[in-house]
Amino acid sequence: MSIKVVLLGAGYVATHLAVGLERLKKRLVEPYGIPLANYKLPYKIEDIEIVGVYDVDNSKVGKSLYEIATQVMGSDYPIPEELKKLKVSRGVHRDSTKGMGFSATGLDDVRGVPEAVDVLVSEWLSLKPDVVVNVITTEYGNSYPSKEVAEEYILSGKSPATHVYAYITAKYASKVGQAAFVNAIPTPVANNDGLLNLLEESGVVVFGDDGATGATPLTADILEHMFQRNRKVEFIVQFNIGGNTDFYALTLEDKNKMKEITKSSMVKDILGYETPTYIKPTGYLEPLGDKKYVAMHLEYISFNGFRDSIYINARINDSPALAGILVDLIRIGKIALDRGVRGTVYPVNAFFMKKPGPNNSRNIAKTRAYYELLRWLGLK
Amino acid sequence: MSIKVVLLGAGYVATHLAVGLERLKKRLVEPYGIPLANYKLPYKIEDIEIVGVYDVDNSKVGKSLYEIATQVMGSDYPIPEELKKLKVSRGVHRDSTKGMGFSATGLDDVRGVPEAVDVLVSEWLSLKPDVVVNVITTEYGNSYPSKEVAEEYILSGKSPATHVYAYITAKYASKVGQAAFVNAIPTPVANNDGLLNLLEESGVVVFGDDGATGATPLTADILEHMFQRNRKVEFIVQFNIGGNTDFYALTLEDKNKMKEITKSSMVKDILGYETPTYIKPTGYLEPLGDKKYVAMHLEYISFNGFRDSIYINARINDSPALAGILVDLIRIGKIALDRGVRGTVYPVNAFFMKKPGPNNSRNIAKTRAYYELLRWLGLK
Amino acid sequence: MSIKVVLLGAGYVATHLAVGLERLKKRLVEPYGIPLANYKLPYKIEDIEIVGVYDVDNSKVGKSLYEIATQVMGSDYPIPEELKKLKVSRGVHRDSTKGMGFSATGLDDVRGVPEAVDVLVSEWLSLKPDVVVNVITTEYGNSYPSKEVAEEYILSGKSPATHVYAYITAKYASKVGQAAFVNAIPTPVANNDGLLNLLEESGVVVFGDDGATGATPLTADILEHMFQRNRKVEFIVQFNIGGNTDFYALTLEDKNKMKEITKSSMVKDILGYETPTYIKPTGYLEPLGDKKYVAMHLEYISFNGFRDSIYINARINDSPALAGILVDLIRIGKIALDRGVRGTVYPVNAFFMKKPGPNNSRNIAKTRAYYELLRWLGLK
Amino acid sequence: MSIKVVLLGAGYVATHLAVGLERLKKRLVEPYGIPLANYKLPYKIEDIEIVGVYDVDNSKVGKSLYEIATQVMGSDYPIPEELKKLKVSRGVHRDSTKGMGFSATGLDDVRGVPEAVDVLVSEWLSLKPDVVVNVITTEYGNSYPSKEVAEEYILSGKSPATHVYAYITAKYASKVGQAAFVNAIPTPVANNDGLLNLLEESGVVVFGDDGATGATPLTADILEHMFQRNRKVEFIVQFNIGGNTDFYALTLEDKNKMKEITKSSMVKDILGYETPTYIKPTGYLEPLGDKKYVAMHLEYISFNGFRDSIYINARINDSPALAGILVDLIRIGKIALDRGVRGTVYPVNAFFMKKPGPNNSRNIAKTRAYYELLRWLGLK
Repeated sequence: MSIKVVLLGAGYVATHLAVGLERLKKRLVEPYGIPLANYKLPYKIEDIEIVGVYDVDNSKVGKSLYEIATQVMGSDYPIPEELKKLKVSRGVHRDSTKGMGFSATGLDDVRGVPEAVDVLVSEWLSLKPDVVVNVITTEYGNSYPSKEVAEEYILSGKSPATHVYAYITAKYASKVGQAAFVNAIPTPVANNDGLLNLLEESGVVVFGDDGATGATPLTADILEHMFQRNRKVEFIVQFNIGGNTDFYALTLEDKNKMKEITKSSMVKDILGYETPTYIKPTGYLEPLGDKKYVAMHLEYISFNGFRDSIYINARINDSPALAGILVDLIRIGKIALDRGVRGTVYPVNAFFMKKPGPNNSRNIAKTRAYYELLRWLGLK
Repeated sequence: MSIKVVLLGAGYVATHLAVGLERLKKRLVEPYGIPLANYKLPYKIEDIEIVGVYDVDNSKVGKSLYEIATQVMGSDYPIPEELKKLKVSRGVHRDSTKGMGFSATGLDDVRGVPEAVDVLVSEWLSLKPDVVVNVITTEYGNSYPSKEVAEEYILSGKSPATHVYAYITAKYASKVGQAAFVNAIPTPVANNDGLLNLLEESGVVVFGDDGATGATPLTADILEHMFQRNRKVEFIVQFNIGGNTDFYALTLEDKNKMKEITKSSMVKDILGYETPTYIKPTGYLEPLGDKKYVAMHLEYISFNGFRDSIYINARINDSPALAGILVDLIRIGKIALDRGVRGTVYPVNAFFMKKPGPNNSRNIAKTRAYYELLRWLGLK
Repeated sequence: MSIKVVLLGAGYVATHLAVGLERLKKRLVEPYGIPLANYKLPYKIEDIEIVGVYDVDNSKVGKSLYEIATQVMGSDYPIPEELKKLKVSRGVHRDSTKGMGFSATGLDDVRGVPEAVDVLVSEWLSLKPDVVVNVITTEYGNSYPSKEVAEEYILSGKSPATHVYAYITAKYASKVGQAAFVNAIPTPVANNDGLLNLLEESGVVVFGDDGATGATPLTADILEHMFQRNRKVEFIVQFNIGGNTDFYALTLEDKNKMKEITKSSMVKDILGYETPTYIKPTGYLEPLGDKKYVAMHLEYISFNGFRDSIYINARINDSPALAGILVDLIRIGKIALDRGVRGTVYPVNAFFMKKPGPNNSRNIAKTRAYYELLRWLGLK
Repeated sequence: MSIKVVLLGAGYVATHLAVGLERLKKRLVEPYGIPLANYKLPYKIEDIEIVGVYDVDNSKVGKSLYEIATQVMGSDYPIPEELKKLKVSRGVHRDSTKGMGFSATGLDDVRGVPEAVDVLVSEWLSLKPDVVVNVITTEYGNSYPSKEVAEEYILSGKSPATHVYAYITAKYASKVGQAAFVNAIPTPVANNDGLLNLLEESGVVVFGDDGATGATPLTADILEHMFQRNRKVEFIVQFNIGGNTDFYALTLEDKNKMKEITKSSMVKDILGYETPTYIKPTGYLEPLGDKKYVAMHLEYISFNGFRDSIYINARINDSPALAGILVDLIRIGKIALDRGVRGTVYPVNAFFMKKPGPNNSRNIAKTRAYYELLRWLGLK
């Protein structure tokens, strides 16, 4: 019994996910980086089947994921042959690639948003995805107060691509009964009251927003460590620099702003007080590639006023980390559908997302969220 | 309603605890570093009253904690005047200062262990401590299979000072009905089947062994972070170097051995598998003083076989960190007595100790243990 | 035989310099951080006498350096009483405080640049400084092709405050015969062909630009270490964050741009090839204060293609470091005057400056420059 | 015109050197990590020809370097076919493998030292090496007061293998007129008055002792950086852990002692004063392999008594780094012979060695030594 998946965005994360899944199916690699790989879930990793990939980059549309993976991972890497069958289809553009400096065309650019919606719904009715995973480049986006406003903005072309894709998922779900939408980027969906309402009523399970990988979840857990000892954190600095498209995008003002909001929101939630914080993607340097460099520094006050200092440096493969948790989010998406769940699920988001929806949810330490997740899944 | 405390060892930790408590009572400092300071417990921090301090260092016995604090913290530091009344009494020696290079005499050296036991029990009957806190220098010690063997070894002089002190606590408790013994050093008490049995039957609550401060609990929580994401930890290195008496002691083979056992035991408990590990106190360098330097490095395998690297460096005030958690252990000791508890309490040890008793207990991540502790205390 | 000094800017650096000099005169502190303190120079540290301080911040003008030092260093710090006599005079403003958010008025704002020049020249004729030290906040500034253009721009009010101050020094020197101008900020003076020509012909010795302290000289020496072993540096990342006025200023686009040019210029000079580099002041976080946090990461290729990684983290007191080298620059300024030198001196700049003048000079590693400096001074 | 080389020890360094040289000859790799690769020397890298390799490990003797390289670098690594012709011959044992836990037999074990000397001299007379390179496992060894004592100790079997090999080189050189001996390990040769005298009189050029790679030269250069700014270094900690044979050997007391002496000797030489120092190989952890982890921490006093902190962490490929400088040492060995030099050469040792001979030489910063070396070579 397979889980059919459509990927939105044919970048690093989608590529690593597709390549990793095939290698896992062939047992060429251990299932490391997949949080629940050692638990018995109703769906196995091998049940995941990618049935469609969408992008707007003109150098990618029409190519196979095999060709794209060869560029991303180098020609020495053993790319699975199966990916030759997966062709990139043209998706929704809006402003999502603004400033990125490559040629991009969306169906919406040519035919307008309403017609683009119809085309994709119709394609999905034949692909029959259970889960839609959004990993396009981070784009700026606001929330809508109601489902009516959401629909009006989306159809009139004033919304980001992520919101158009979410809307397509809603339309598709209302025809086939249900679907799951995993929003791994910061553009608000699970935290977007109006859009979430629209999705929920159309039969969609939503997980989001902004997949929790890299330095931020580690920071969250270290803050929890300080909180549990009642140490007063005096400040936190966290620098990030990488050489992939995502870091390039984040040098653009609007896109960086989205990340910053996400990351700062957690500090007060965990510590219980405000503390001066500098946490944001800091720069782009090409030779770092997908393996970003993170530098973190914090100081705290211990018993009787003594001050301690911590310095953390790391090199972290950005895209594989996100791909790994997507494997579980896809499986849990299908499980949620099987259980008849609609709308968003805080215990899932709390562990897997940097800004867990619904709107105004508390950002607890990941280490706590993990056990809440196991409980929700009935694993503990 | 006060909690009366006897401190065993008049070193850095005892000094920081005594100084910090007085400054807290005068509201000169915030209660940072005391894990449960923000929760409402039956006993307030201000309820703690130190009624006795024991040591064997001939340069300390007979001096006040005020004099000792002046040496430890420097003459510029505002040592509370109240500590002038607290004189250091002569305690139990055994081999506890072997190789440390200072002149030491215990009651046991002069009169033998059995008479030393009688003297201290009689002193305590007039001091009336609720809680006895062991912070003497780490010494080597084994476990006993039964309470009979424990008693025999202790009285015949073959046991370390810690075990003699625990035995004195048992004798004292059997006269006044109850007492708590907090073992903040690695020498096994809570993990010592025979000794624990003897203590339990005498009416003693025991917390131990080896107070969880410094880099080890942080390492535990970072390992839990890896475990929760199913990342395969390839190795862990953790270096420690400091300039206080404790680090000097750990350059001596036997004492270091005790620490090493404690620290390695947790890795498998948390990760669920063995991983090559180098974790031990590494050296002594005088100018680092009580603020130790910790360097940590680990690598793990993420999704699809990619390898990430983490480097952590820290400067941590060793003794204040331990003093901070002792404030809670003392309060929880009294709470346990009020509840009629005897023997050791895993949910307390699991959070506060590096090697939580009873023997063969699992070493869960501190971040989990914290919520278990709150539950046991009825705070959550 | 004293050296009379006028300080431009009454910020952190000026304050640390003034406080440190008085404490050195009283032998309250060792002369650490002064590179040539252990060599026998014609002038001793105690010969330095600050005779004037200029600023435009309305909360500083008219106050004594004692009052300002109390704010900067806290009221617990033992500020030398001598600083009560040193009052801050009103100086030149131009755009130097733009965006800094405090109220500032320069003589030039009230009377125009030409009259401001006359006022300061006349004041200096009575103060009789040998050396003028520029430590105002970094401001944007261009070079001039000739002394005529320099003069025209400066008098017509289109130049930054630094250039007006340099011009005042030229006018003053042409009256008294000579003076030294030490430019410790990035705004080009020693690298400014037109302005340098004007200064040289007026009898001025110029050292500049941008005092070499903090992480950049260390980076330079580490790059030299790589160069000497023919290791191929693949990339360098260097983050900086601090909480002093200077870091706040550098969050403003123009001011940051000045720093960035300075810092990147050295990499190719030392390594002999271009390498991808991200080196710039990265952020402002108030609680870090004057003790900035620096994080650096580089990778290089070693023998037979193997790749090594280095991570450096540091906390560095920014202003004292600069104040320390100013002590030597002031002494060397006077020595140069005594020798009849005019214009700028590369062997001095090469060690003490991040962007050593004259224009287009090579940025050699500091470790080499040190021995060149000793040679120029006749110390080796 | 080739340079013929005999390698003593068929471990990691010898393997990396042999593999790297072949790959350089085929232009498969750039000459990174070879300090003087970009200078015009009388001998090119390609001129180096390895004509013999000696070891005592019974699992290596008789095998080709190709087979050994396959074990060291993995079977995926493209080992040059040329190494199939290079067979490992049986060499001198003494106590050099004590405690290492593998089966080893030397010619000396079977026939005694004098006969082993004769066998090797005779083999070398047919191999005709210009340069002999010692990269056997670090072993404990003392200095001799005179050449007579040296010879007596060596022939009576009381000397370490390194000294026997040096003696063989002397005997060989006295027959063919000259030879160079490069001692890349800490066992004293260039710092060994008696042995050096014997070698010099036999026509041998000696470079030594202990090839300067890894963290120590970097530490030296950072100390020079502090010295040049007159910063008072309060302490230095430097930890090292690796997973190669060399680190395993250094867990053995005697061998570690040799390293420690080497490393501490430089601190006072560079700074000009003693400072508390903890620098030594710290541990062995197998999965780190040849890429050791180095953690360093130092604090210093800056101007006006302010204290700064530096933390350095690195992962460094140990053996390739040493192999890279051996390429130059071999070439310079031949150049020295061509110039008629005998005995040891401080300007060469000062840059390339951790403990530069002759005995009691000053350990200057590498960054200075580099320019002295260029001068000696006539390159500057």
